[in-house]
Amino acid sequence: MALANIGNLQNLEDNYRKNLINSFTGFKSVSLLGSIDEKGMSNLAIFSQIIHVGAHPPLIGILFRPPTVKRGTLENILNTKFFTINHIREDFYQEAHQTSARYEESEFDACGLEEEYLNDFPAPFVKEAYVKASASYVSHYEIKENGTIFLIAELQQLYIPEEALGEDGFIALETAGTITCTGLDTYHRTTKIARLSYAKPGKKLEIIG
Amino acid sequence: MALANIGNLQNLEDNYRKNLINSFTGFKSVSLLGSIDEKGMSNLAIFSQIIHVGAHPPLIGILFRPPTVKRGTLENILNTKFFTINHIREDFYQEAHQTSARYEESEFDACGLEEEYLNDFPAPFVKEAYVKASASYVSHYEIKENGTIFLIAELQQLYIPEEALGEDGFIALETAGTITCTGLDTYHRTTKIARLSYAKPGKKLEIIG
Repeated sequence: MALANIGNLQNLEDNYRKNLINSFTGFKSVSLLGSIDEKGMSNLAIFSQIIHVGAHPPLIGILFRPPTVKRGTLENILNTKFFTINHIREDFYQEAHQTSARYEESEFDACGLEEEYLNDFPAPFVKEAYVKASASYVSHYEIKENGTIFLIAELQQLYIPEEALGEDGFIALETAGTITCTGLDTYHRTTKIARLSYAKPGKKLEIIG
Repeated sequence: MALANIGNLQNLEDNYRKNLINSFTGFKSVSLLGSIDEKGMSNLAIFSQIIHVGAHPPLIGILFRPPTVKRGTLENILNTKFFTINHIREDFYQEAHQTSARYEESEFDACGLEEEYLNDFPAPFVKEAYVKASASYVSHYEIKENGTIFLIAELQQLYIPEEALGEDGFIALETAGTITCTGLDTYHRTTKIARLSYAKPGKKLEIIG
């Protein structure tokens, strides 16, 4: 396999570098974040920068771009403290991608996704999503190197298709229809290779699922 | 689709909650981080908590668990400032998973992966990997909520299979053989659904790749 060696990353053309660095970081979690402003207008936006921070308490981290222009989702979360996370399925990945356009109105109507309110939680869910959660703001850290914001949130309630939820808590995301993305604009479905046993020195791995 | 509603996350059994929360955060980037200690012993460890932080400068973020026990990779990066990121292919995903066992010796030999040094960079690469990069420490933030460390690093040089590198810098990770993971132990290959055009209000999306 012939490998291209790319150095001097700072000197690359802007768009080339953006595609390159965004795709180098690999396959990503991609979700729709639902929020609401203080006047009651809903907002829906696609994010691929969500990671697991801890299980106990159940914390996630979301990286937001610098708040130098209006960032509806970030402002709403800072103001109201509540939002939802909705996994994307292939059935509505184009509607999900379309939420990245700059709308003045709610992206739910503009992009053709249905707003849903569950268990008196104040922020809107995506009705079409099968895997979703309510979450609340905990804190945030400014990344001084480039002004991005790493926001910590706590998961409140999860909604998971019964057929995708294992006895040990593992979620079979393929069964639930969740997809993944690379770079800024490319979507992929997945096929399980295997689930592996816990690794210990000198012990042969087993395929457990 | 019948959805299970799971609340009271704090009261779930520990292992169940760990699987649940780790799989809720979706498909993840999964890579081997290569590092070296001050005595010259190499270290290789699997990580699924890497995200894109910025393209200019080219920054990534890695979340490390709390440094309450020996964390070889984190210590090595803090001490020597250099490490490598190596995407995992299906050909060696079991060897990659095995690096999560606690070894006293170098995981390269113990797990059957070949150490490689490129362009005088001081940290080891994985020879079997097709997509890889050298990176240097920039800074780190302690997440006070649970003691995890969010480390910022700058990409130095990338190595990308020529056939996977697009004219606009996009990396076709499937062509390069990169895989993804969910939860703590499950690996998946992917199939591209589509690459979509840049979204603008009122403009129909196009499939561009």
